[in-house]
Amino acid sequence: MAESDRIYTAALVVIGDEILSGRIQDRNIAQVATWCGVHGIRLNEVRVVPDDSAAIGAAVNALRTAHDYCFTTGGIGPTHDDITVDAIAAALGVGVMVHPDAEAQLQEYYADRGGLTEARLRMARVPEGAELIPNRYTGAPGIRFGNLFIMAGVPGITAGMLDALSGKLAGGAPLLTETIGSWVQESEVADLLRETEQAHPGTQIGSYPFWREGRAGANFVIRSTDAEVLAHCTRAIVAGLEQLGHPATAGGL
Amino acid sequence: MAESDRIYTAALVVIGDEILSGRIQDRNIAQVATWCGVHGIRLNEVRVVPDDSAAIGAAVNALRTAHDYCFTTGGIGPTHDDITVDAIAAALGVGVMVHPDAEAQLQEYYADRGGLTEARLRMARVPEGAELIPNRYTGAPGIRFGNLFIMAGVPGITAGMLDALSGKLAGGAPLLTETIGSWVQESEVADLLRETEQAHPGTQIGSYPFWREGRAGANFVIRSTDAEVLAHCTRAIVAGLEQLGHPATAGGL
Repeated sequence: MAESDRIYTAALVVIGDEILSGRIQDRNIAQVATWCGVHGIRLNEVRVVPDDSAAIGAAVNALRTAHDYCFTTGGIGPTHDDITVDAIAAALGVGVMVHPDAEAQLQEYYADRGGLTEARLRMARVPEGAELIPNRYTGAPGIRFGNLFIMAGVPGITAGMLDALSGKLAGGAPLLTETIGSWVQESEVADLLRETEQAHPGTQIGSYPFWREGRAGANFVIRSTDAEVLAHCTRAIVAGLEQLGHPATAGGL
Repeated sequence: MAESDRIYTAALVVIGDEILSGRIQDRNIAQVATWCGVHGIRLNEVRVVPDDSAAIGAAVNALRTAHDYCFTTGGIGPTHDDITVDAIAAALGVGVMVHPDAEAQLQEYYADRGGLTEARLRMARVPEGAELIPNRYTGAPGIRFGNLFIMAGVPGITAGMLDALSGKLAGGAPLLTETIGSWVQESEVADLLRETEQAHPGTQIGSYPFWREGRAGANFVIRSTDAEVLAHCTRAIVAGLEQLGHPATAGGL
């Protein structure tokens, strides 16, 4: 396998009772997934776990050893329910320390915001041996420990931390995609999809049905790391749909 | 432990490359979570896995044995990328059969929609020994196998299947919640939250910060299965916030 064919995979652990109770609609899965895609990294698994030390530790240990990268979101704030750092340090078998650079950043951030209280200093705590991920929005940084990236749960802040990681992690050839849509029941074109995928090794074709305006349609997503194969496979699907009497719309419906 | 104190837990396996690629914003985690909450069941873990037989099987086997209920969403349509039934049957160690009632339902549904083709008949396939979950929107049912509930991925159809399960699954005392909000940095009230939670055994207090209109605020979610304890704890937080100069807004901000 050529180095360029190397596939980089990642996993995400979403930490938070608020997601599991349905109170908050998660936004981090989609944004981490999109960020990974752009950087040639395949997000291969996500686990959502409660604010529970054992559950966090088990998920992180399972996923950081199985993938090139493991991200976490949530639970790194100043309150008692923010237990991510302690849970992960325990899972890693290391202690927890106050990172001097994080403390300095927080000191500066809170200088004219009421000062660095004990609760706020909690946000400078990291597993021993960790580095920081910059957070340009508030004083509290994210944390990197080897292939593990511990990020905030508030989506806007998570976005800033992902941004700070952009260009820093090795990835492979990005998975390219083409989307086409058609007003057709996917069950009518199941054979076409299966046969076309088989005829184009290295492609994957996903079929995503919907019902709108009182009728059935579907979007078909073709994926490949090879632009030429992708284009060829997409043309074959479009031609096949046309032949069955279902014009395709480029970009999807 | 009295029977009424029994806690029922559930897990969810979201199956689909489209979620892991970021192409689709998941909606099923929040709706399954909310449904569970209403029925006195705690959603304790979610895993999002790709359209990969081994990954689906491993997640389902890990979670169905660890929880009272295991739900899955996605991958039960008519196309080649719908591999959930085969993957789960393999994980359960049973064969796959065409369920006669499902076939009859599909026959009826497709009678004036082009007939029951081979691709459409795929949607009548179930792990041997399974029952059906009604789907009032299209002909294709969901599947129940013991404590495992295999549902569609299209959120509207998932909703119909959850609806069909309403009142059918045993649950415990629902977790009651109160939400209050305040224009305060959560780090300013971290001690209040921690101490109030400790003073009210059986409650959990979650703190969810936000930034809006150029200033910091937070919502505090108090949870308990006991209405009286919940009310008492909520009053204590409201009084504590008041005392610190931060009026609370019932229902959250």
